[in-house]
Amino acid sequence: MDVNIFTPLFKARSVALVGASNDPRKWGRRMLNNLINGGYPGEIYPVNPGEDRILGLTSYPSVSAIPGTPDLAVIVVPPANVVQIVRECVAKGVRAGVVITAGFAELGEKGAQMQHEMVTAARSGGMVLVGPNCNGFMSPWEKLYVQFPSFFTPAGPIAVAAQSGNVMDALARQAMLRGIGCSVTVASGNEADLHIEDYLTYLADDPHTEVVLSYIEGFKDGRRFFDTARQVTRKKPIVMIKAGSTHSGAGAAASHTASIAGSDAVFEAACRQSGIIRAGSMTEMLDIGYALLRQPLPQGRRVGIVTAGGGWGVMAADAAEKMGFDVIRLPEETIKELDRLLPAWWNRGNPVDLVAGSTPGNIFKAMEVMLNCPVVDAVIMLSIMPALRVTGFGVSREEAASENRSAMLVQAVVDAVEHFTRLAVQYRKPVIIATEHMFASAEQEAKINHALGLKRLMCCHMPHEAAAVLKALLSYGEYLRR
Amino acid sequence: MDVNIFTPLFKARSVALVGASNDPRKWGRRMLNNLINGGYPGEIYPVNPGEDRILGLTSYPSVSAIPGTPDLAVIVVPPANVVQIVRECVAKGVRAGVVITAGFAELGEKGAQMQHEMVTAARSGGMVLVGPNCNGFMSPWEKLYVQFPSFFTPAGPIAVAAQSGNVMDALARQAMLRGIGCSVTVASGNEADLHIEDYLTYLADDPHTEVVLSYIEGFKDGRRFFDTARQVTRKKPIVMIKAGSTHSGAGAAASHTASIAGSDAVFEAACRQSGIIRAGSMTEMLDIGYALLRQPLPQGRRVGIVTAGGGWGVMAADAAEKMGFDVIRLPEETIKELDRLLPAWWNRGNPVDLVAGSTPGNIFKAMEVMLNCPVVDAVIMLSIMPALRVTGFGVSREEAASENRSAMLVQAVVDAVEHFTRLAVQYRKPVIIATEHMFASAEQEAKINHALGLKRLMCCHMPHEAAAVLKALLSYGEYLRR
Repeated sequence: MDVNIFTPLFKARSVALVGASNDPRKWGRRMLNNLINGGYPGEIYPVNPGEDRILGLTSYPSVSAIPGTPDLAVIVVPPANVVQIVRECVAKGVRAGVVITAGFAELGEKGAQMQHEMVTAARSGGMVLVGPNCNGFMSPWEKLYVQFPSFFTPAGPIAVAAQSGNVMDALARQAMLRGIGCSVTVASGNEADLHIEDYLTYLADDPHTEVVLSYIEGFKDGRRFFDTARQVTRKKPIVMIKAGSTHSGAGAAASHTASIAGSDAVFEAACRQSGIIRAGSMTEMLDIGYALLRQPLPQGRRVGIVTAGGGWGVMAADAAEKMGFDVIRLPEETIKELDRLLPAWWNRGNPVDLVAGSTPGNIFKAMEVMLNCPVVDAVIMLSIMPALRVTGFGVSREEAASENRSAMLVQAVVDAVEHFTRLAVQYRKPVIIATEHMFASAEQEAKINHALGLKRLMCCHMPHEAAAVLKALLSYGEYLRR
Repeated sequence: MDVNIFTPLFKARSVALVGASNDPRKWGRRMLNNLINGGYPGEIYPVNPGEDRILGLTSYPSVSAIPGTPDLAVIVVPPANVVQIVRECVAKGVRAGVVITAGFAELGEKGAQMQHEMVTAARSGGMVLVGPNCNGFMSPWEKLYVQFPSFFTPAGPIAVAAQSGNVMDALARQAMLRGIGCSVTVASGNEADLHIEDYLTYLADDPHTEVVLSYIEGFKDGRRFFDTARQVTRKKPIVMIKAGSTHSGAGAAASHTASIAGSDAVFEAACRQSGIIRAGSMTEMLDIGYALLRQPLPQGRRVGIVTAGGGWGVMAADAAEKMGFDVIRLPEETIKELDRLLPAWWNRGNPVDLVAGSTPGNIFKAMEVMLNCPVVDAVIMLSIMPALRVTGFGVSREEAASENRSAMLVQAVVDAVEHFTRLAVQYRKPVIIATEHMFASAEQEAKINHALGLKRLMCCHMPHEAAAVLKALLSYGEYLRR
């Protein structure tokens, strides 16, 4: 497949919005507004025979009336008109289209027939199509936001290729809140022309993309998908949710994107053979994706746990063992080294309980001891609190709420997570953190997550989430070593 | 058990802090600071022979030097001094103590002996003890915050009784961020005197407590615990995490709170027989706890799903089926009624996909149709977005970021969730919502969650989380009907 076919799509220099509207209730209005508000620097051509101007732009009565040839046509007209619009686009020389409109194969035979005509028309002119029945895409490096929701995820390393627009939107929004940003996000809809694996092919060589998150309900061509995935995962990781794994879910998938969900056992085996990392939820998928940006892959299943809270350590040990990790017994040598760093009453076991009296400096050194331990492949760190280089927690309520102190605390968390992450890179063993930000207001916490993301850092929230991230890193590492 | 023994503890009219300090590195300083900052209206007596004044308060050289008798003594002195302090408290007539200090039974034989002496001394004078090796407690209705972290969860309906201070703190902090608030939170530590089941006995009749969240690693007396739980769950729900369910976790629990974790299968059976709701994580526990505040319990396993995003519907259907729910086929009658409310191209299946074109008014009516459907016991609602009564999503970036619009959006979410929750109460069938707040910044989202909590409302984040909440409500309902 020639990946240049994606250039007029994700790097379009000009966009026609067919079905643009002045009516605030219409999707064509919202999409145009988003295209403008996203800061797109290229030419935008609204098309609507009933309007002269829309949102300050000249509106054209038809695609053929547009001066010059737009790279991309975004189509938001009623389903019965779509085939004709695609034909006009082909006649004009437009090379890429996004069909937002629903009402095709997902509704049955008649819709499938229309969908077939639409694709035939497009292919006859070398025009590629996203959709139909989709939510569009984001190409943040180009400031090109073809979408319903009014948020604008900044440019970054995470790609999303999803068979659901709302899943794509949720992932993109979280990537924005976490300060990470996206390279490309795309919702494939009914996949009349471009299939999910086509996007993967593009993303494999997209220099901005470092991790691919993918939500799948089923395949038009399973063999082609996994052949593609096998190529991609040698270059960069794919983290995937496979939905429709139950009878109820499969039925819902059929009505949603006309997908045949297939057997989950077969899917699981195919994922293992092609290096795909499976995630159980969107939260887990995001955590895994962020961790992959900077964390090394573990070389084995032996895990050390360092915790500032006994209960958190117990929950992490439970989760790690259930996921197949070996929560190792610390060698005598390691215990002796930790004895020099931790208060006399530390528990001398794994999890290492950072009892009261541990200083940040010694905690970082203790982490080095753990990472240096020959029977430890990875470390779970629970609570970032005791590693923060801040003083005076015993301050007044007013001082605690001050802007200065707030900024200092955000910085202290970023510094501590950065420190642990550098140690992870240095020792080539992952350090996955799970933490409550005990001192932080909701607003501070949002700032912390955003500030971490800007440095490609991450913390999980709960102990079992850290274990799940580690499991994902392990399975990807095992695949690559095979 | 006479629950009046808890009055000098959770409703103390005066508190001695033994081991109070001017040294900002000491816990005794931080705890005193928190006690003051929390707004405690009773008398506070710092005790430290080396200080005259601490944080503006008169410091006393010993417990016996305090004028009058404090209800409660909080003890933060080195372990070797604790027994002597308890003896002084008993001599003084103090009736409740919290021993923060660690270094007792969790460290082995010698510590266990000290712990035994401490309890013997306390019991000889009718003094009850929390701890040792604990993080204290919050009694927000009394503005009594005996704790390390510097946040102050407001008064509310959620009680926390945990065998881990850090778990208690995390739950209390989330209850604060979510605007819900707590009645009492307590970390039981080594349970030398008061056991986790003693707190449950108190909470069962505490008028402020509506839901009990409990984190357990093991029992001193399992039979007594479950006998107590059976009494409590007839009055109010207990949501529990049992940690230490694996070999690694059990080992960690032993070193953390000297607990014997026991078999998880036995525990599971005992929970079923005593009506305890088990949660898999702290996030799940909180979601379940909040849902119990206003949602009715489902009468059966037949679930309807209403979704504004196809992919979310598929994931919810998967999760619901895996948890034993029946994602029912909609009766013809119900489909006909929905035909009158939804756009012509709706999918006519379960999940009901709220395709573009649905209005908030019709969505609420569609929810009534679902709740009125005789084969539906509960509804999962995915995405609150299309039910929001707001206009003009196609606004400029500046307007979207304005204070007014922000407040309007927060209110719109609260109104919509309130509407669904009232329908749930009216039809006596739960409606559990999972949603991304697509339009919201991180700051707005924090405000939304807080505003929802003030009205005892909740949304889950992810589809599988909504299914897990429903499962918890179902199992509690099934128990109560037995």
